[in-house]
Amino acid sequence: MSGAPDPMALAVGAALRGVRGANPLVGAVLTDDAGRVLAAGHHRGRGTAHAEVDALARWEAARAADPALAALDPAGLTLHVTLEPCDHTGSTGPCSGAILASGVGAVRYAVADPTGVDGGGAARLAAHGVRVSGPTGEPAALALTERWRRARDAGRPWITGHLAQSLDGHAAAADGTSRWITGAASRAHAHRVRARVDAIVVGTGTVLADDPRLTVRDAAGAETGPQPVPVVQGRTPIPAGAALRARPETLHVPAHEPEAVLAALAARPGPWPHGGARPGHVLIEGGPRVLGAWIRAGLVDELMVYTAPLLLGAGRPAVAGLDVGTLADGLRWHPDPAEDGPVRALGEDVWTHLAPVPAPAPEGPDPQED
Amino acid sequence: MSGAPDPMALAVGAALRGVRGANPLVGAVLTDDAGRVLAAGHHRGRGTAHAEVDALARWEAARAADPALAALDPAGLTLHVTLEPCDHTGSTGPCSGAILASGVGAVRYAVADPTGVDGGGAARLAAHGVRVSGPTGEPAALALTERWRRARDAGRPWITGHLAQSLDGHAAAADGTSRWITGAASRAHAHRVRARVDAIVVGTGTVLADDPRLTVRDAAGAETGPQPVPVVQGRTPIPAGAALRARPETLHVPAHEPEAVLAALAARPGPWPHGGARPGHVLIEGGPRVLGAWIRAGLVDELMVYTAPLLLGAGRPAVAGLDVGTLADGLRWHPDPAEDGPVRALGEDVWTHLAPVPAPAPEGPDPQED
Repeated sequence: MSGAPDPMALAVGAALRGVRGANPLVGAVLTDDAGRVLAAGHHRGRGTAHAEVDALARWEAARAADPALAALDPAGLTLHVTLEPCDHTGSTGPCSGAILASGVGAVRYAVADPTGVDGGGAARLAAHGVRVSGPTGEPAALALTERWRRARDAGRPWITGHLAQSLDGHAAAADGTSRWITGAASRAHAHRVRARVDAIVVGTGTVLADDPRLTVRDAAGAETGPQPVPVVQGRTPIPAGAALRARPETLHVPAHEPEAVLAALAARPGPWPHGGARPGHVLIEGGPRVLGAWIRAGLVDELMVYTAPLLLGAGRPAVAGLDVGTLADGLRWHPDPAEDGPVRALGEDVWTHLAPVPAPAPEGPDPQED
Repeated sequence: MSGAPDPMALAVGAALRGVRGANPLVGAVLTDDAGRVLAAGHHRGRGTAHAEVDALARWEAARAADPALAALDPAGLTLHVTLEPCDHTGSTGPCSGAILASGVGAVRYAVADPTGVDGGGAARLAAHGVRVSGPTGEPAALALTERWRRARDAGRPWITGHLAQSLDGHAAAADGTSRWITGAASRAHAHRVRARVDAIVVGTGTVLADDPRLTVRDAAGAETGPQPVPVVQGRTPIPAGAALRARPETLHVPAHEPEAVLAALAARPGPWPHGGARPGHVLIEGGPRVLGAWIRAGLVDELMVYTAPLLLGAGRPAVAGLDVGTLADGLRWHPDPAEDGPVRALGEDVWTHLAPVPAPAPEGPDPQED
């Protein structure tokens, strides 16, 4: 095994192919008794198979195609999972049951399930004779779910910030024109993100300027899947003719504070579009002051930046109201490797995936400084 | 050969691993008589081996390690080159001679050598019995050198624009602090670019604000290799105590027009740091108005953008004076795949490599528009 990749590190890598949101990132890798990797799987977000089920399904497909694999005794196999398998029937069946049905003999997990309702998978597996070890505590596996856990512990949804801009940071040209700064591939990606969320927050300024529908639509313009609840943040009334007036589920929160919006979301009766009693994932689409307020409040868990290869030189900034006066107070972010990030080309645009971090210690003198 | 990759397409791919500048991008691929690829090479910029020589050197190394390859008759091999091999002894020997020495039996090239002094390689090879075909005119090979040829035809150097900024397009915070927005990896990359150029242009505002030395330095701060000529653009005198005063080669052009700077560069006696009688490659480092002026004049052949994952919300823009009032007049760029671009992570920063393009036709309505 010396020199072979650590299966849990591979499981972490698989997990990072998934998307952040209401559910944590999870990866799973199945090995034989010699440590050879037989299958890997990951969770692709709420409503899709859990990582364990994904890995076991890939394993079943591989066995069906190869008699040598089919001859392997499942009791000799080990499933390595970054998070304790759940014992809960939600939008998918419990992983504990799927593992028991597979006959896999051993399970190794890195992090204990932090949820009350989903916990207990390890105990059930052990009670049915599976050799269970964990939590093994690999730091990379803990880091996968750290921000997700922080949002969950705060009793609030996962919050994604959306920023679409020119290369020089403008969301509109000097005369207010803004269609289109980013390209079709970026807009399609943004609709795939909308498809994951329970609510989309915009400011009243955006409603007045753009009159958005805030629906999830496919490339042909047809509405598709569960539609997020539109949320308008700000004191200005929604105009009588606004497109959002045609959506009775629209929630207007006449306040500028993100905390007031979170409170209004928590108070709204469920179920939410993706089935929960509380919203699990909220998208902040802007405008600049709304996004700035959520960022300043420390409430943006991931930032998705769509940058077009376009220089405008002047215009409306894509984010505003950050109250930063000097470089040391700048809001630093960290590359987020999840979702095939942290950097990807989307058509001619660049998509950057970022995680908030505390400001680092200032750097010393740099010999290449000027 | 059906389904096998086209050797000229592979040569184009190899060429794009090189850097743009005073010399054109060139790639070369050596195949046997069955079309199998034996070696690939590319040019890495002025002063380094040409693509043909690079490919032949790799082929010699492969032969030395493998008797089966050593047994191949070179007369049965074909060298595919994106640009006609040169017949000129400059900082490196002529490719025609290297090819003749290798015994390779056939050469196929896509684009004729556009230079007077370097041309003639094909004729010399043919005169010595090499089976030569070309120019074969593959569009991808033509596109490799299109902008390089345009700058050359205009009688001016290749011009690289440098833009270092926060995520929201600022080169300094509201109070003017700017060290460091980008990280050490970005600054080291910027020094590698400085190492390629004959001159670095900054504005008088940058001299007053940052007092730069504009030297090429390694990570330890030691000056390394030929030092580019510092060029100061603008009417304000260089202050008596400025670091650039200690560099007698500093050229001050008391004008705001990029064309005046180009004229001053053309009038300055050579040799330039990299040996030419005229500057082959010039870097525009800023500030914002200087970079904006070169961009607006259509004189930036490639733009390198270093973006730090940092939000400042306000401050000095990284580029200014573009005179864009409405979105349709925005200055569009195109991803440039050269130099392992168009997008790369540099530490926590993102490096984007862009080529100028004419403004595209406006897009029609988009069904995912709001």
